[in-house]
Amino acid sequence: MDDDSPKVLKQASSARDETMSTQTNFDLVLFGATGDLAMRKLLPCLYQAHVAGLLHPEGRILGVSRSELDTAGFLAKVETNSKIHIKQNFSDEAWASFIRRIEYLKVDVTEKGDFTALGEKVKARKETDNVVIYLSTAPKFFAQACENLAEIGLNADNARVVLEKPLGTDLSSSQQINTDVARYFKESQIYRIDHYLGKESLQNLPALRFANVMFEPLWNNKYIESVQLTIAEKLGVEERGEFYDITGALRDMVQNHLMQMLCMTAMEAPASLDADAVRDEKVKVIKSLKPLTIESVNENVIRGQYVAANGMNGYLEEVDVPKDSFTETYVAIKAEIENDRWKGVPFYLRTGKRMAGKVAEIVLNFRPLQNHIFDNSQPAPNRLVIELQPTESVRLYTQMKTPGAGNKVEIVPLATDLEKALEGRRAEAYERLLLDVINGKLALFNRRDELEAALEYVMPILENWANNTTPPHGYDAHSWGPEAARELLARDGNKWHEEQ
Amino acid sequence: MDDDSPKVLKQASSARDETMSTQTNFDLVLFGATGDLAMRKLLPCLYQAHVAGLLHPEGRILGVSRSELDTAGFLAKVETNSKIHIKQNFSDEAWASFIRRIEYLKVDVTEKGDFTALGEKVKARKETDNVVIYLSTAPKFFAQACENLAEIGLNADNARVVLEKPLGTDLSSSQQINTDVARYFKESQIYRIDHYLGKESLQNLPALRFANVMFEPLWNNKYIESVQLTIAEKLGVEERGEFYDITGALRDMVQNHLMQMLCMTAMEAPASLDADAVRDEKVKVIKSLKPLTIESVNENVIRGQYVAANGMNGYLEEVDVPKDSFTETYVAIKAEIENDRWKGVPFYLRTGKRMAGKVAEIVLNFRPLQNHIFDNSQPAPNRLVIELQPTESVRLYTQMKTPGAGNKVEIVPLATDLEKALEGRRAEAYERLLLDVINGKLALFNRRDELEAALEYVMPILENWANNTTPPHGYDAHSWGPEAARELLARDGNKWHEEQ
Repeated sequence: MDDDSPKVLKQASSARDETMSTQTNFDLVLFGATGDLAMRKLLPCLYQAHVAGLLHPEGRILGVSRSELDTAGFLAKVETNSKIHIKQNFSDEAWASFIRRIEYLKVDVTEKGDFTALGEKVKARKETDNVVIYLSTAPKFFAQACENLAEIGLNADNARVVLEKPLGTDLSSSQQINTDVARYFKESQIYRIDHYLGKESLQNLPALRFANVMFEPLWNNKYIESVQLTIAEKLGVEERGEFYDITGALRDMVQNHLMQMLCMTAMEAPASLDADAVRDEKVKVIKSLKPLTIESVNENVIRGQYVAANGMNGYLEEVDVPKDSFTETYVAIKAEIENDRWKGVPFYLRTGKRMAGKVAEIVLNFRPLQNHIFDNSQPAPNRLVIELQPTESVRLYTQMKTPGAGNKVEIVPLATDLEKALEGRRAEAYERLLLDVINGKLALFNRRDELEAALEYVMPILENWANNTTPPHGYDAHSWGPEAARELLARDGNKWHEEQ
Repeated sequence: MDDDSPKVLKQASSARDETMSTQTNFDLVLFGATGDLAMRKLLPCLYQAHVAGLLHPEGRILGVSRSELDTAGFLAKVETNSKIHIKQNFSDEAWASFIRRIEYLKVDVTEKGDFTALGEKVKARKETDNVVIYLSTAPKFFAQACENLAEIGLNADNARVVLEKPLGTDLSSSQQINTDVARYFKESQIYRIDHYLGKESLQNLPALRFANVMFEPLWNNKYIESVQLTIAEKLGVEERGEFYDITGALRDMVQNHLMQMLCMTAMEAPASLDADAVRDEKVKVIKSLKPLTIESVNENVIRGQYVAANGMNGYLEEVDVPKDSFTETYVAIKAEIENDRWKGVPFYLRTGKRMAGKVAEIVLNFRPLQNHIFDNSQPAPNRLVIELQPTESVRLYTQMKTPGAGNKVEIVPLATDLEKALEGRRAEAYERLLLDVINGKLALFNRRDELEAALEYVMPILENWANNTTPPHGYDAHSWGPEAARELLARDGNKWHEEQ
């Protein structure tokens, strides 16, 4: 739902890319190969990795699905449905060499018999090669797929399984999926995708915080007054009303993407950047969140739904959406982290569809000056804005002297556009994540305890809403969200970023 | 010698300029009106203030010098020698209305009789109007000029006197001038010019430090490892060898401009931005400098002189320079401030002619990370660069993640170009200072104790050099200075900015 290809993909194949290249051969078994994600994202990203020389020359992509196709038939679909999503670095020659990696096999995950051929195909390889199983299917098939894979030995140590969201609709269904998969795969073989973690701009956060001597002393409740985490989309639910209505913004965006942004912003310095060192710190943040209760949700969480405005339909007028739906297209949460660093600093999380702009950003609002000697009666406090999209930038809003006599100040950003400032190709999130799976790097994937802690946090919201007869707060299509969300901040004397 | 007109003067006459406008009428009596400074800087700056509507409509400029001229004759000189220095906002109409402010009177400062006519001309005005006496003459005439002005009552409370540098060649001659002037004018009537203080980019320093909550906690020896203050010129001594050879870089640049940059960088927060509150803090910095001794100068001060290279003459080949001159065209000093904030942080000051670039900047080098978890073996420490020229910018060098797999970081600036970021006209230094004199604002002028403290600090250098038979360290024209200056920093494990 949250399509966000980087605007600029730099010229392929720089020296730096070598760090991403695979050292060992691989078979990537792509379940759901004829589906939307595979065609729109996964295959185009694999093509980019191929062009950049980051795939082992013998690495194979084995598309599987229940469609009765042969390789030629599948490639015809790829030609039609996937190639159009390649936005740069395309050449007929590279494309021809890319598709030579691709084979197709019909496998119905519910048909144990179909797996025999799959097993034979994969086992033709050396055992030291990596086997990546990408389950781009509905989660209800995960358990059976894993069981059938185990049956043919594709859960051996050289195998990894990638799980696409949503991993369940609530804590218990998620636990069920995790338990089912854990029956056949060790936690260290399981790659739970949250594509936000594949974004360079989000990965930059640990660098910004821990590779610079000047931010860490300020990164706490002594200097920071509040934090805002926003993922706003301009699009509505488009043609996907049926899916969206049973999902909603909370499951679609909050417990995964926004929670990851929160963790990266708030976590303590890890002892190293090893996968578990980082994930341990992230889990600590989620577990330090002040738990919501069904009652406190009324105070701290805003459920919104867009209504017709600016020439656009409201949510209830969208295709396949029930006319009496309470599904949220907008959520705002006031979260609190109960540790020494953050006690007393509200973290405001929000996401919405049909908002006034497309933006994903982290805003740290500094406390106001205690004592100021300038002519302005109240200069705006400093703030650090880390924008993930539409641009990837870091902006430290700083007071500078207004030219002329007098001693006025005005706020201007000390800024950098990361896409311009940093050389080297910025891979799309899925490309980075696919390569990390192939290379066995777990750091950018959700660990089970992390995911379940996030779900535990949002459960009181789901429970409250399930029984709440108050309809969602309406907000105009292409506005910045419901008035109630403004009030959520106003209670603390704060404003959302666009009003600051 | 240090000509540095701003590259860009924004469109005149914005609303903000009103803060600079004079509320009261004035007579500006300009001694040395036919001289270089008056023609090249003062009159063009007054023209800009006029165009911008910042001069009281009845404000008058009374040029005086010993040249036998009438107003028409003087205006003819202005037409020829001054108008060419107006680089923007010129119109014939504005020029015509500007020169209507100007009159001329022949006054030889050594001829008491000449002052009678001057007194009559000025006294025709109301006593509440300001009278600004600008002494753009050799300092040896200051005492007599002041005596003769006092004789005709032009030292009354509504009179101010502006003293151009150099105020003496050493501490005792400076004290003599100050004592002489103090016989006729109160300290609050005396405006000692250091045009560096008129620069917006230097005035921005208190704003940067004290109007932002995030710099002050870092602005000390816990986070800062060293500070570099540089004023480098590409020009040589040009046609001014005779003047320069008796002045040298130390007197020309260090005890005034570099010392002011040091004060603005290192001072404690003043209680207010009132002239004396700020100047008190600046004096405290200078008085906290670890005193040099004649012996310690050998260790901590580098005297340099440019030699022929890159197709350019050496200093000794320049016109009017004695072939055996030891005069320094380059100075580097390692200074130390003995207070809690700065103990242990070297402040490296340097200035030179015929350097590789034209730049004035303040560089704060942060300490390296104690513990870093990234792939680089030793990431470059952070630094804050405040550039006064050629651009006016602030750049906070920050480590960001290098795109791609792996966890490398690289340093990029969070930056702002102040000339682009801030609206409002950036007046040239002399314009700002002239308007401040007219408006009775002392903050940007040197107080006697400040100036004398600075001279006291450099006296051991002058004394050492006067008796030192070791010639200055040679450095190639258009290089970054002598090898000895590199060694001065290398001893502490540091490097000059261009090598960082």
